[in-house]
Amino acid sequence: MLQQLFTPSVQHALDLIGIFVFAISGALMAVRKNFDVFGIAVLAEVTALGGGVFRDLVIGAVPPAAFTDLGYFLTPLLAALLVFFLHPEVERIQTAVNVFDAAGLGLFCVAGTTKAYEYGLGLTASAALGVATAVGGGVLRDVLANEVPSLLRWDRDLYAVPAMVGTALVVLCIRQDALTPLTSGLAAITAFVLRLLAMHFHWRAPRAWHRRSSAVEVEERTQERTQKATA
Amino acid sequence: MLQQLFTPSVQHALDLIGIFVFAISGALMAVRKNFDVFGIAVLAEVTALGGGVFRDLVIGAVPPAAFTDLGYFLTPLLAALLVFFLHPEVERIQTAVNVFDAAGLGLFCVAGTTKAYEYGLGLTASAALGVATAVGGGVLRDVLANEVPSLLRWDRDLYAVPAMVGTALVVLCIRQDALTPLTSGLAAITAFVLRLLAMHFHWRAPRAWHRRSSAVEVEERTQERTQKATA
Amino acid sequence: MLQQLFTPSVQHALDLIGIFVFAISGALMAVRKNFDVFGIAVLAEVTALGGGVFRDLVIGAVPPAAFTDLGYFLTPLLAALLVFFLHPEVERIQTAVNVFDAAGLGLFCVAGTTKAYEYGLGLTASAALGVATAVGGGVLRDVLANEVPSLLRWDRDLYAVPAMVGTALVVLCIRQDALTPLTSGLAAITAFVLRLLAMHFHWRAPRAWHRRSSAVEVEERTQERTQKATA
Repeated sequence: MLQQLFTPSVQHALDLIGIFVFAISGALMAVRKNFDVFGIAVLAEVTALGGGVFRDLVIGAVPPAAFTDLGYFLTPLLAALLVFFLHPEVERIQTAVNVFDAAGLGLFCVAGTTKAYEYGLGLTASAALGVATAVGGGVLRDVLANEVPSLLRWDRDLYAVPAMVGTALVVLCIRQDALTPLTSGLAAITAFVLRLLAMHFHWRAPRAWHRRSSAVEVEERTQERTQKATA
Repeated sequence: MLQQLFTPSVQHALDLIGIFVFAISGALMAVRKNFDVFGIAVLAEVTALGGGVFRDLVIGAVPPAAFTDLGYFLTPLLAALLVFFLHPEVERIQTAVNVFDAAGLGLFCVAGTTKAYEYGLGLTASAALGVATAVGGGVLRDVLANEVPSLLRWDRDLYAVPAMVGTALVVLCIRQDALTPLTSGLAAITAFVLRLLAMHFHWRAPRAWHRRSSAVEVEERTQERTQKATA
Repeated sequence: MLQQLFTPSVQHALDLIGIFVFAISGALMAVRKNFDVFGIAVLAEVTALGGGVFRDLVIGAVPPAAFTDLGYFLTPLLAALLVFFLHPEVERIQTAVNVFDAAGLGLFCVAGTTKAYEYGLGLTASAALGVATAVGGGVLRDVLANEVPSLLRWDRDLYAVPAMVGTALVVLCIRQDALTPLTSGLAAITAFVLRLLAMHFHWRAPRAWHRRSSAVEVEERTQERTQKATA
């Protein structure tokens, strides 16, 4: 069994920060998609709480924390309100979504892995669920916004890999019995910085072999041209 | 603890009516999307039972009622059959979807809030889960139909607000110890009528500030024109 | 109560085969959508494990088998790796997706129905959950790929019906107390072969009446022409 990682109040504060930054990313996506104020609130809630609710359902921690802790429910509404009145200029929205999303990614991959392990899952399953916690909210956000999840697209900078690295560091610390607030904070920051670097240098993952000059690709390029032409 | 709100048979009948009207809305959406008879049945089931299954998973009431009560499973099939043979003229489908959907919205926001509270959730969490129960099926319907959920779109009439008002009335009644069949019926009817009024007068919610003349909006208007032109 | 259907090792091997073939179908879809290597892995995992995770959440078997059995988690990664390096020529991808998907459909409708019944669900609910287990992964795959699920489309060959027939055979065997490895194997093969026949002869299900010459259909045909023209 894992000893209590942080004092409860510190853990709670970190959770709320992770929820807040993910909620900002969801609310900004809602603004970009031109949703109304309720759409902004819903997308903020789903993005912030979706990954954690999935994790809690999987490990059998029902009702999920999102439905027992009032702060978890109210924080996304605060984020939605802020975005509603203060959202940045339209041109800068995508960058802001990505930076806040990266911070949430780092915090959630650590918290997700740790909680799954505390509930008795094996190390591999805890790592998988940690990554799912981190990326789940964003995938739900993109599905509700009717877009192909960024997570899956080859033309988006690395997203899962930073979460995997952060998760791997947490698992390594657990195995070495060295999971402290410091080491798990470092794991979260590593994932965050890796994601920022991936965005800055446009690190991308390879696609399947023989895809370079395939017919499908040509077709897609044509579609993109068509979309640009009509936009 | 809440005393039994209705006699079991009355509660069951109301549940089945809510399931039936939501199933009609799902089946009509399937017709509009040109799905086949199995697509109609699946979309009827998912729309009718999706919100309740989510609620039951969250509160830990497994297996969800949808999988233990044969009536819950068969009612959407009946609705799908009716729509398959008797669906109204194509032009009138969207209105019919909306009216049936409004009736389900009223019934489910009351039933969802009440059941969540009975399972020990706090008042705020019960209200949130009640709204999620009411809107969840419709969101799943729209996601499966590959459309942006009506719930989120600014150019759709108020949808979440009527459910929130109905839910707030239920929570108020619980706090005042005044939740009776009469008062919860009134809450359901209030939500239903508010939704009908919202549709009739095209009540809409505001979008984020500074969105009026943004570049994105212009782009979207262009896309809409293009879509209309190609349709 | 059902006696243990297979020796655990045989059951486990069948589960892994079903997971493997569904994962192949998910990975090939990811290649078709031009996702990167992580998108391929994620879609392989979701397609292979999605239906089973849903079933386990519904019957309260948490954590789901997908998170307790390392083999369930690693098998989709192996499938993703194979597809990444060896995926067939682009033109043949869709056929390969469909054949592997059909094999998974047969294996999963049997396994899903049996497990649901073992957890105490009624025969109808077990059958419904068996079909949901079989089609759930594919629906999630299509939703994440931002496509209308094949399951629902009228212009796709019968998909749910083969799963329903296989499930019905399992339920019949349970009622007759005749569920053996042989009979459930036959049920799985029946579903598989029916799906292959449906694809070969383009068996399709009817749409709602009066849809033949409707305005919507005309509109859709126009859209299709437009899409073909721009492609």
